[in-house]
Amino acid sequence: MASAKPAAHDVVAIGNAIVDVLAHADESFLASHGMDKGIMTLVDAERAEAIYQAMGPGVECSGGSAANTAAVIASLGGKPAYIGKVKDDLLGTVFSHDIEKAGVSFACALSGNGASTARCLILVTGDGERTMNTYLGACRELTAADIDEALIADARVVYLEGYLWDEPAAKEAMLKACRAARAAGREVALSLSDPFCVNRHRAEFQALVKNEVDILFANEDEAIALFESADFERAVESIRPHVAVAAITRGSKGCAVISGWEAQMVAPDPVAEVVDTTGAGDAFAAGFLRAYTQGLPLAVCGRLGNLAAGSIITHFGARPERPLADLYARATA
Amino acid sequence: MASAKPAAHDVVAIGNAIVDVLAHADESFLASHGMDKGIMTLVDAERAEAIYQAMGPGVECSGGSAANTAAVIASLGGKPAYIGKVKDDLLGTVFSHDIEKAGVSFACALSGNGASTARCLILVTGDGERTMNTYLGACRELTAADIDEALIADARVVYLEGYLWDEPAAKEAMLKACRAARAAGREVALSLSDPFCVNRHRAEFQALVKNEVDILFANEDEAIALFESADFERAVESIRPHVAVAAITRGSKGCAVISGWEAQMVAPDPVAEVVDTTGAGDAFAAGFLRAYTQGLPLAVCGRLGNLAAGSIITHFGARPERPLADLYARATA
Repeated sequence: MASAKPAAHDVVAIGNAIVDVLAHADESFLASHGMDKGIMTLVDAERAEAIYQAMGPGVECSGGSAANTAAVIASLGGKPAYIGKVKDDLLGTVFSHDIEKAGVSFACALSGNGASTARCLILVTGDGERTMNTYLGACRELTAADIDEALIADARVVYLEGYLWDEPAAKEAMLKACRAARAAGREVALSLSDPFCVNRHRAEFQALVKNEVDILFANEDEAIALFESADFERAVESIRPHVAVAAITRGSKGCAVISGWEAQMVAPDPVAEVVDTTGAGDAFAAGFLRAYTQGLPLAVCGRLGNLAAGSIITHFGARPERPLADLYARATA
Repeated sequence: MASAKPAAHDVVAIGNAIVDVLAHADESFLASHGMDKGIMTLVDAERAEAIYQAMGPGVECSGGSAANTAAVIASLGGKPAYIGKVKDDLLGTVFSHDIEKAGVSFACALSGNGASTARCLILVTGDGERTMNTYLGACRELTAADIDEALIADARVVYLEGYLWDEPAAKEAMLKACRAARAAGREVALSLSDPFCVNRHRAEFQALVKNEVDILFANEDEAIALFESADFERAVESIRPHVAVAAITRGSKGCAVISGWEAQMVAPDPVAEVVDTTGAGDAFAAGFLRAYTQGLPLAVCGRLGNLAAGSIITHFGARPERPLADLYARATA
């Protein structure tokens, strides 16, 4: 349970600050451009440009995994802050406008030079699945200097996205944030982000989970990948001893919330129509943390996570189209 | 009926090339910022910046009235081209990418210097109504030199948006396009765009309709404003003698299609839920022209206009989220 100490923020989220470009695509587009469906792939500027030239008409909106989580927490009535790096260019201005106007304290200076603001080219197939190509740009300039220890100390939970681990300087920033949270008696949450991200950094992620993390977010594939478990049940047994809480999403089956010897399966409410799964995991973490930071029971945290994820997948894009405060009321009724 | 001569394009649309920034807002936001609900207002760079700072998180997508029409024509299976001015900056790149990838021939060079690409800050209220604030930027650099007479001559219809009339140089461009179409035995279509736009340029619009226009698009308010008629019926009588066809949209009542002494009221199909009316009129014109350029009966043109408008208002934004070819099949079945 989150610290009872008063806090200026419920959650400080740290992640790659990205503007999404979403377009519809069919399966043959993914195949002919050598993309792995459902996966986030890092691309360089040249490949990003080639994909953009090939993809259909797009919609631009602010994204970034942990930033989406922060925006959904605010939409659910919580008090989030966010640390992530953009450049002082048009997309950087869009990103910082959108996150502040979503009700999130944006706590990171815009960089005046260097690479341009990150973008993620997202192809959404007919089944609502998203395939992501990320050009990190300015995100690669996030360093430990961007971590405000006082901000971390004054938030109930610091939430880190696993994607940060792809950059050595960002990794240092994450570890500094973990230390600051620990020193202040706060909790550390981590999202494993992506099974391929777990595969890239398995040993380091295992150490992080064992030594630093209180609350672990993962989907089934990521949970299995972490300790290379044979199946979901064994993944749960491997993770259980190391964290206070693990919240594992299972797609249309809802989520499993594990804490000590307790394990609760929380079924989802029905979802009308899945339009675009972009941001489902981010929204789940937001719903969970919104309830968790209020000291609510874990079953309620899981339920609000399911409700937030179920809401975000009914429309294009990963940020709420309307305030989600009614979901909080529903989960806590 | 459109010329039977073969043509490379069904429609060449000419208009202000704009990237939209859409955000939700409540009525009090409009009031406190002195905005007239449902209206397009031209703003300078300073006012645009102030509105952007005040408005909520946004979604960026390509817009522009005639550009939306061209995109919907392509989505319905037609062959459109588009002339409009953007700068060679990030939003200009986004605009030209989106319109080309929508299946529209983009026939206007990007300007290398001068004002930045135009943007329209659109506030969408809970009832789905949109209130628009347009910073014209690079659009103001559209001149007669941008009108390719051979392109006009090789399209069944040239389609002009009334908004262009706000700029003297663009006005010259429109008149050049009219002359080129006439010389090639093609037809000229005009959208009145906005009742306030009609009020700003009434005498000139009347002359344009009398002397140049074959197909007039308007909503009820615009039709009434054109000759300052007392009511809709009298507006129809005033317009009837001057154009071959007038297609007048009447919101949830569908449309009236007037040609000579014929007048047909075409009721709309039911619409599930109105999310955002941005682009409804643009999509109506697209549906109408898609059928019209195939020589289909006017009732079918009106029906396809209604179907296209009914589709576009069920989601956020003015461009189709999916191909609309099934609507063409439905209207022509």
